[in-house]
Amino acid sequence: MSVAVVLVSGGMDSCVTAATAARDGHELALLHSSYGQRTEARERRAFEEIARHYNARQLWLDQRYLGRIGGSSLTDASIPVSEADLTSTTIPTSYVPFRNAHFLSAAVSWAEVIGAHRIYIGAVFADSSGYPDCRPEYYAAFNELVRRGTKPQTQIEIVAPLIGMHKDEIIRRGIELGAPLELTWSCYRSSDRACGTCDSCALRLRAFEQAGVKDPIPYAV
Amino acid sequence: MSVAVVLVSGGMDSCVTAATAARDGHELALLHSSYGQRTEARERRAFEEIARHYNARQLWLDQRYLGRIGGSSLTDASIPVSEADLTSTTIPTSYVPFRNAHFLSAAVSWAEVIGAHRIYIGAVFADSSGYPDCRPEYYAAFNELVRRGTKPQTQIEIVAPLIGMHKDEIIRRGIELGAPLELTWSCYRSSDRACGTCDSCALRLRAFEQAGVKDPIPYAV
Repeated sequence: MSVAVVLVSGGMDSCVTAATAARDGHELALLHSSYGQRTEARERRAFEEIARHYNARQLWLDQRYLGRIGGSSLTDASIPVSEADLTSTTIPTSYVPFRNAHFLSAAVSWAEVIGAHRIYIGAVFADSSGYPDCRPEYYAAFNELVRRGTKPQTQIEIVAPLIGMHKDEIIRRGIELGAPLELTWSCYRSSDRACGTCDSCALRLRAFEQAGVKDPIPYAV
Repeated sequence: MSVAVVLVSGGMDSCVTAATAARDGHELALLHSSYGQRTEARERRAFEEIARHYNARQLWLDQRYLGRIGGSSLTDASIPVSEADLTSTTIPTSYVPFRNAHFLSAAVSWAEVIGAHRIYIGAVFADSSGYPDCRPEYYAAFNELVRRGTKPQTQIEIVAPLIGMHKDEIIRRGIELGAPLELTWSCYRSSDRACGTCDSCALRLRAFEQAGVKDPIPYAV
């Protein structure tokens, strides 16, 4: 069975992405990064529970050096987390500059070592809050970089199966594939009950509402 | 004065690259990564001494997660360091898969945070031992990725000023620019006196011989 590396933050999108890779017939190798995000302990627990659910190989990486670089409310405690504004077109304070390149580089290195030919990432363009590294053309450029930057015999392709989907479609797809959405975590602010008011919670709650399904995780508000 | 980020391993090429960025009129912001390389303590000392020489801003990053990914004799103690074979066209065991993408991603994130528009890397194609991420087309692809993966107003360009040069030319350039070559470290094997026999030492010694200059650092053999 061919192995696929899946980047799993512990959130809903990455969980449905893992479910998609399993549906595509791959043996799963799940990769999670700690990069100094405020609710990391909770996210890592979600990652581990999702990995157990799929009986997957796991690799956890300490990329907390990202917090030393700074620039984001996710990793820099001196920058406040913005209240959600889903109509805004500006990039929110939670943006970590060039973040996905750090995760994808790790995925490519690991894929080359374990012989995986496919990397799955749960990037979503439609509801991406304007993060520049969630756009389809970004992944086309990354695949070109991988072709040029790995051994000639290496064949690795990055796929983002959810990229064109809206959050409510992702939820319906997750339910269809039996993805364990109850194990996922999205909140940027808390690690006990989800706050329900940060960008990430607001997107999640709106999506469950649009999908006509009740979110299985508990909220504070 | 415009700021430039320079990736500085502590080796000769990165030292001459820093000298080139200074000559180009930039204020220097030097970035160094610990990624589990065997002689890292010595390399980091070289980085710090070079930074002091140029009175530069410094950022040190812990990227030892690369060692957890494995696959290289540089970071995996179970893989022996190859004896030098400068005529070989195969990729040596010291190759860390997709390594430079990890360093460049950090440089791009930091450049975006501090407002630097230029990133200098001492990649060398001519004597690169066949590492795929030392080729000019790799850097063209990375620049395309940066254009697509950063905020619209961000202007960052990666330059590799030594990429077409041979090692002996790099030494002559370094001497011409007053680069502190005596502070640099290249050996993959030892951190006391350079071994003189690993790939990296062999390349360095041959280059000094070709440049007709004595290498200012001490060797064990």
